[in-house]
Amino acid sequence: MPTIKAYIFDAYGTLFDVHSVMKELNSLYPDKGEAISQTWRKKQVEYFILRQVMGRYKPFDQVTRDSLVYAVKENDQSIDEDQIEHMLESYRQLKHYDETEEVLKQLQGNELIVFSNGSENMLHPLIQFSGLEPLFSDVISADEIKQYKPAPAAYAYALEKAGVKREEVLFMSSNGWDISGAKSFGFHTAWINRNGLPVEELQLKPDAVYEDLKGILEW
Amino acid sequence: MPTIKAYIFDAYGTLFDVHSVMKELNSLYPDKGEAISQTWRKKQVEYFILRQVMGRYKPFDQVTRDSLVYAVKENDQSIDEDQIEHMLESYRQLKHYDETEEVLKQLQGNELIVFSNGSENMLHPLIQFSGLEPLFSDVISADEIKQYKPAPAAYAYALEKAGVKREEVLFMSSNGWDISGAKSFGFHTAWINRNGLPVEELQLKPDAVYEDLKGILEW
Repeated sequence: MPTIKAYIFDAYGTLFDVHSVMKELNSLYPDKGEAISQTWRKKQVEYFILRQVMGRYKPFDQVTRDSLVYAVKENDQSIDEDQIEHMLESYRQLKHYDETEEVLKQLQGNELIVFSNGSENMLHPLIQFSGLEPLFSDVISADEIKQYKPAPAAYAYALEKAGVKREEVLFMSSNGWDISGAKSFGFHTAWINRNGLPVEELQLKPDAVYEDLKGILEW
Repeated sequence: MPTIKAYIFDAYGTLFDVHSVMKELNSLYPDKGEAISQTWRKKQVEYFILRQVMGRYKPFDQVTRDSLVYAVKENDQSIDEDQIEHMLESYRQLKHYDETEEVLKQLQGNELIVFSNGSENMLHPLIQFSGLEPLFSDVISADEIKQYKPAPAAYAYALEKAGVKREEVLFMSSNGWDISGAKSFGFHTAWINRNGLPVEELQLKPDAVYEDLKGILEW
C-alpha cells in the first residue's frame, strides 16, 4: 500500500447523520418523520445525480429544498416557505456520528479534508456548528466546480485542491454511489457501511469496508 | 400545440410491467419476491444512471444481471448462474400492461417508436414475445449509441432516428427520471403516472399526466 497523504471524507451520511432531522420532521408531521426523512434523502441524491446527467446543475441547497418538498408531498402533507426554511436550517445543524470527533483527533497531523456535494451555504455552517472545523485542513464543495460526485470531474477537482497524487488519497464515504465513483476515479476507498448493506455490484469494490469511522484507524 | 409526428414510448415500466417477474422470484425465494423485485428495479435504474455519470458504460443486460445479484444479496439470499439466466429470460417475457395493445392499435397510422435503455438482446426478444412488434414502426436501443437516458445525447439519438423535429415528438414514460430527461431535452412529454406519485420537483413538469396509456388518446 502506498502512503496515504490525504484523508478525504464525504460529509452527508459519513460524518453527519442526515436523519438527525427526524425529530424536527416529527414535530411538524407526527408519525411521518421517518418516512419523510428517508424519502428526502433518497430524492436529494437522485435529484443531484439526475441533474448531473441532464446537464442541469443547480446547487445543493436548491436540490435539498426540492427533494424536501417532494418528500412531503409523497407523504400527503404540505409545507410552507417558513417551514422549508426551518428544515433547511435544521439541515445545517445535523448531528455528527458519535465516533467522528475521536477519530479525527487520532488522525491529527495528517491532511484531513471534507469533500462534499453540499454547497457552501449548507456545508460550511454545518461544519462550523458541529465544532469539528478546527480538526480539518480544508473543506471542499463540489459547488466550486459545479460538478456533482460521482462525476470524475468532481473527484479530479478535490484531488487538485488536495495537491497530492491520486493514489495517495484515502477517500471515505458511507454512500455506495460515492465510494464507487471515487474508486472509479482512482482513489483508495474505505466504505463506511453504516447500514450493513451488500457491496454495490459495479465491479468497483472498495479497498476496505468498515462499519463506522473507527475502522479507518486500522487502515 | 404543434402536430405530433412521432409517438415515442419508453419500454420498462411504461409498456411492460417490470414486476411481472415477481411470480418467478417468489418460486425461487418464497415470500421475498416482491422485496427482491422492487430492489432489482431500483438498483437497475441506479446502476445505469451511475454508470452514465461515472463514464463507465456497460450494456443493460449486464446492469440487469448486476442489480439482480445485489437485490438477492440485500435480501440475504443467494443465486447461481443458472438461476440468473432463468431470471434474465423472464425479463425477456415481461407482461405488457393491459391497455397497451388497444392504445397502440388506436394510434396506428402514426409513427410509433419504442426507445429504451434496454440492450438489443433484452429489448428485441421482449417486444417479439409480447406480440406487439407489428404495431411499432421502429425499436431504438440506447445501447446503439452507448448513452443511457436521461443523458441528452440519448434523446438526441432517438430524435435523429425518428427523423422529425424535437417539438413534433410526444414522449411517454412512467419513469420520473425519464420524463424529466425528455422534457429537459425538448420533447413534449406525457407522464404515465401508474403509481399516483407527485410530479418530480425538478422544474421540468410533464405536459400531461395520465394514469395509464389510454390517456394519450386524449392528447
